[in-house]
Amino acid sequence: MSDPDADPTATTTSKRQFASDNYAGICPPAWKAMEEANRGHASAYGEDRWTERSAELLRDLFETDCEVFFTFNGTAANALAIASLCQPYHSVICCETAHVETDECGAPEFFTHGTKILLTPHEHGKLNLDEVDRLVTRRNDIHYPKPKALSITQATELGTVYSVDELGAVSELARRRDLRLHMDGARFANALETLDVAPKEVTWKLGIDVLCFGGTKNGLAVGDAVVFFDHDLAAEFDYRCKQAGQLASKMRFLSAPWVGLLENDVWRANARAANRAAARLEAALRDIPGIEIMFPRQANAVFVQLPESLREGLWERGWRFYTFIGAGGARLMCSWDTTDEDVDALTRDVRELAQAVLATSTPE
Amino acid sequence: MSDPDADPTATTTSKRQFASDNYAGICPPAWKAMEEANRGHASAYGEDRWTERSAELLRDLFETDCEVFFTFNGTAANALAIASLCQPYHSVICCETAHVETDECGAPEFFTHGTKILLTPHEHGKLNLDEVDRLVTRRNDIHYPKPKALSITQATELGTVYSVDELGAVSELARRRDLRLHMDGARFANALETLDVAPKEVTWKLGIDVLCFGGTKNGLAVGDAVVFFDHDLAAEFDYRCKQAGQLASKMRFLSAPWVGLLENDVWRANARAANRAAARLEAALRDIPGIEIMFPRQANAVFVQLPESLREGLWERGWRFYTFIGAGGARLMCSWDTTDEDVDALTRDVRELAQAVLATSTPE
Amino acid sequence: MSDPDADPTATTTSKRQFASDNYAGICPPAWKAMEEANRGHASAYGEDRWTERSAELLRDLFETDCEVFFTFNGTAANALAIASLCQPYHSVICCETAHVETDECGAPEFFTHGTKILLTPHEHGKLNLDEVDRLVTRRNDIHYPKPKALSITQATELGTVYSVDELGAVSELARRRDLRLHMDGARFANALETLDVAPKEVTWKLGIDVLCFGGTKNGLAVGDAVVFFDHDLAAEFDYRCKQAGQLASKMRFLSAPWVGLLENDVWRANARAANRAAARLEAALRDIPGIEIMFPRQANAVFVQLPESLREGLWERGWRFYTFIGAGGARLMCSWDTTDEDVDALTRDVRELAQAVLATSTPE
Amino acid sequence: MSDPDADPTATTTSKRQFASDNYAGICPPAWKAMEEANRGHASAYGEDRWTERSAELLRDLFETDCEVFFTFNGTAANALAIASLCQPYHSVICCETAHVETDECGAPEFFTHGTKILLTPHEHGKLNLDEVDRLVTRRNDIHYPKPKALSITQATELGTVYSVDELGAVSELARRRDLRLHMDGARFANALETLDVAPKEVTWKLGIDVLCFGGTKNGLAVGDAVVFFDHDLAAEFDYRCKQAGQLASKMRFLSAPWVGLLENDVWRANARAANRAAARLEAALRDIPGIEIMFPRQANAVFVQLPESLREGLWERGWRFYTFIGAGGARLMCSWDTTDEDVDALTRDVRELAQAVLATSTPE
Repeated sequence: MSDPDADPTATTTSKRQFASDNYAGICPPAWKAMEEANRGHASAYGEDRWTERSAELLRDLFETDCEVFFTFNGTAANALAIASLCQPYHSVICCETAHVETDECGAPEFFTHGTKILLTPHEHGKLNLDEVDRLVTRRNDIHYPKPKALSITQATELGTVYSVDELGAVSELARRRDLRLHMDGARFANALETLDVAPKEVTWKLGIDVLCFGGTKNGLAVGDAVVFFDHDLAAEFDYRCKQAGQLASKMRFLSAPWVGLLENDVWRANARAANRAAARLEAALRDIPGIEIMFPRQANAVFVQLPESLREGLWERGWRFYTFIGAGGARLMCSWDTTDEDVDALTRDVRELAQAVLATSTPE
Repeated sequence: MSDPDADPTATTTSKRQFASDNYAGICPPAWKAMEEANRGHASAYGEDRWTERSAELLRDLFETDCEVFFTFNGTAANALAIASLCQPYHSVICCETAHVETDECGAPEFFTHGTKILLTPHEHGKLNLDEVDRLVTRRNDIHYPKPKALSITQATELGTVYSVDELGAVSELARRRDLRLHMDGARFANALETLDVAPKEVTWKLGIDVLCFGGTKNGLAVGDAVVFFDHDLAAEFDYRCKQAGQLASKMRFLSAPWVGLLENDVWRANARAANRAAARLEAALRDIPGIEIMFPRQANAVFVQLPESLREGLWERGWRFYTFIGAGGARLMCSWDTTDEDVDALTRDVRELAQAVLATSTPE
Repeated sequence: MSDPDADPTATTTSKRQFASDNYAGICPPAWKAMEEANRGHASAYGEDRWTERSAELLRDLFETDCEVFFTFNGTAANALAIASLCQPYHSVICCETAHVETDECGAPEFFTHGTKILLTPHEHGKLNLDEVDRLVTRRNDIHYPKPKALSITQATELGTVYSVDELGAVSELARRRDLRLHMDGARFANALETLDVAPKEVTWKLGIDVLCFGGTKNGLAVGDAVVFFDHDLAAEFDYRCKQAGQLASKMRFLSAPWVGLLENDVWRANARAANRAAARLEAALRDIPGIEIMFPRQANAVFVQLPESLREGLWERGWRFYTFIGAGGARLMCSWDTTDEDVDALTRDVRELAQAVLATSTPE
Repeated sequence: MSDPDADPTATTTSKRQFASDNYAGICPPAWKAMEEANRGHASAYGEDRWTERSAELLRDLFETDCEVFFTFNGTAANALAIASLCQPYHSVICCETAHVETDECGAPEFFTHGTKILLTPHEHGKLNLDEVDRLVTRRNDIHYPKPKALSITQATELGTVYSVDELGAVSELARRRDLRLHMDGARFANALETLDVAPKEVTWKLGIDVLCFGGTKNGLAVGDAVVFFDHDLAAEFDYRCKQAGQLASKMRFLSAPWVGLLENDVWRANARAANRAAARLEAALRDIPGIEIMFPRQANAVFVQLPESLREGLWERGWRFYTFIGAGGARLMCSWDTTDEDVDALTRDVRELAQAVLATSTPE
């Protein structure tokens, strides 16, 4: 992907964009919790009531005695979680579109000190299980890094969501092949909102060992939650975080916002708002000639094929979004604060530009 | 050191403590800047005006075209800075009391993949230069990790401050032995407030290659600034941060507070308040029989020898602070928000407990 | 690939096999040199006359003042060479069939601490340069590990050899895209024997930065030579080797055999013998109905498609070789000591088994 | 230590020296076994009868079903063994004179990716157990790398040997503090020869988890044995070796010489010869005025205080040995092939030079 963030003009934006849900700020309830947490002193390194409370809320949410750790961002959460599942000479399998493979600049290899990532082709951003099985069974010699874990992203990087049945199949394969399960949940909230089931139904009950529950895209400033459903795997994870520069001294400022998100299901409301905006955007774009939806829209992202002139036109009108060079694809991401007006403003521009494109195209 | 943070009773504290300056919260100007930064959307990964502005302010502060990067905490800032100075088969020299040696759980070794830390005895928390020279010159065979960098902490972990002359001597030795210079500036603001010179006089003009400028202890929630005075060493440091899980997607929430600190010299005012509180504390403790100041008080920490019964008495009265098991030492740390009342309340308790101790001690 | 070495029956073999050129032993001249080196004491860690002499011979061979280091095996040679070219946040590009990708159990990622390997499809085991260019140019954001080096294998893992022109094209691309060049020369001798040009013509004159010159498959017990044509890149490589457990204390026993190989062009004669055996084998197999040669035979390996029953038949007759599960492919590797009789014995068995297969197959 | 190996003049030596036992060559029985192993082909990567046989012999030797792996040298053996005992955020305790600390250029930190080495003062090269206990108990916070293993060297780097009782005390402490035990046995043979007990009595029966049994100094070219007495710790160690570049393709050339050493107790005879030579040397030096033995001579090394002029005199006469700059100490190491004549020649020179020194010293 090209990176519009690298565009200097981008630095002046304050308009709500569709580039990424990390363009959005901090949601009011998270802000309010942080404000309360900022009264007086508190013990450092997580020995504070906010961190205690946020962990309780997550245990309530998952209806199990899981272990919770907060890292500064998702890259570290994923990499450290994988490091807790694999030795350097192991391999972790994910699909070619997985964030751990495409957008973490080798962080998993860095934190694990060599755990190799083996790739499967993707099916709308999801694992091809036959290919996973092939990767696990094709070799058993020591020249080949032993497959030890599966990593799946829920919701996927392509805006799709694994159904409960699909997760069941992943889980069954993992169990059969003795693979541990890591879930990159940068947009776990959006997926859950779509699936509308209890969190436990799509995590520990299906054998997920560790979930990296993203908070940033859901309305926080920093701080993802690493949730271990297997206590043994969580052993000494606090040391792992500390050594890897992921232990916040003023931990309350990472955990308090989570209290804000978790109380009153704010996280679900935020996800719902983003998903609804994406649904509205998808519906509107479907009606525009020359625009093609690339993948089933199941969370808060819409991937569309746009003629280059149209992409450029949107850019000129100040819109920012990720594009796939050559492929002609564009990712339109909605966030917790995306409004109907934002969606309508974008679709209006797309419609106008699309008509102009059609007008200029010569009929056969 | 024992860790009072581990004390469950500590989790309920909101009273201002002397345990650590990371017990304090976010200072008002930093908070206000964060509040402003939270309006609307902003490009991610540092391509926002707040990050741009904070870097400008730091360049103004140091009166040079330095390169600035923000990491989530000091452990990562130090470890990544050292990784940019050393190869895995090199060694970095610091003194035995250095935070990178004593309190980072092997983070430097982890981020550098093996750079060995060679230690010198400390002199009130400072390097023994003769010993540094011995470590550099005693061997030149490949079985000994080649000394490549010096790491100094300013202000030191023992509350002392390197004078301009002392820094000059360190700098001269580094130049003579071809060693790069890293400064752990977790409390750089407190040191500068004591020295009262222009920042450039104690950094790049003395050959400091990279400074890890601490913001957390100065009134931020998260976010330390890694300041490179050598552009070549800064090359690709952004990649290094990204891979190591130290690139914030919503960077503005790390950088905006820095704008709040740097504008109107808030960082200096915060440091001044902490240092003054420590001076007041030191003066009061000096007058109490049976209390001994361990090191020259030059920044915001006072180290005192306290009879065990007295330490326990303070603990019972709800005071929290780090102690040196056996050694009978206690670290009393003041922060930007420590008030005269806080200091007086603590000293009052110390005085009362000290008198009780004297009363119970039998005369010879 | 499946690993016949894992077959217990294989442990009794002493018959000359076609499984791998590392099944062969130490060639007489190398043995003789080792015998001479074993007289009396010698300084350790390479400060001996054998190591000095072997380096001189390599400098003569390449007609340049290259720097030479010996590692214990090719996996370490390749991984350390790549580590000297790349930082952890960089990436190295090779093709999907490269040994560094397929058979080193993540060694490159381990020694580099995270340098990602980016893959191109292979064309008879060679890089697809258009794909290399795409990998280098498609992204320039810090979430993508910066491509820094190209790694090619000469001769390739599929028994083909890059021609001088093909190397020239690789070299031109590397220069244009500012990529460093690593050559995995596990079978460099076999390639050179095929190309029949001066070593310099296919190495430093084409911008190869570092060559891992394999000795083991050419008739040594252990010890590959890492040859740097760029002195800056070689800086401190001795420290790198030491720290990575690749510095032999009794270095003479790694270097003396190289003197045996290099004097009187023994290495060329060994390669010639292996290549000739492979040519003879290829010619014989071509005449057998139902046998298909998979790739152009350009060095000492012949890759053939064999019906499963035929592969099993050969196995039963005591032949050992690597197969590609499912793909029906078999690698037949010749070594310095493979004789015409060995080749004829194998082809005789193949012919007999092939006829049996044809006989049982019903005509249309 | 200064490194005489770096002395160019040293490169011409073939005279038997006292610099190091790795100056010596390959002993006849090891050579003979290698010669036999060099007949015909053998499966690679350890699937050969020599490797099988050498492992059997080691199991017989230790009278237990231990697991055996061969690495190329002791640095890798120690580092990989420690990596199998510790996570990166753990620490391993050894004494300040331990080879893993002083002469491996950070290899343990490199292979473990950050496991910190905590040091105790040495007592004639042995651990100070009270100090070990202090290091384990002084802190239990996550800023301090959790002590997980003890590493001891037997015989020590100072030529002393842990008695059975001393090992029992180490073992008891390790058990009490839940520390794993690593033994660097670069000169294990020499220690055992001194102790004259069954190998099991000073290894697994005392809770040693893994022993790095040195072969190089005992008469091999390369190849140390890593012997695991705990099967769980040995799990996947073969993968660890492979990824770390420590798996020999032609493994038989590492294992066959071990068969040569182990059959007929050659390893014991080699150690006996070296120890006897050292005893003879010690006795002779004791009688020379002005020469002081530094540590109890318990294995094959004699450490002596020599006047500088005497050290220089010996150097001029062509003798090579390690010296401690400033300290005036010299290490005189005997090897399996050191003869009485060698010892007598050295002592004769020392005596002559010592007399000259005395003669020139003015009487009070």
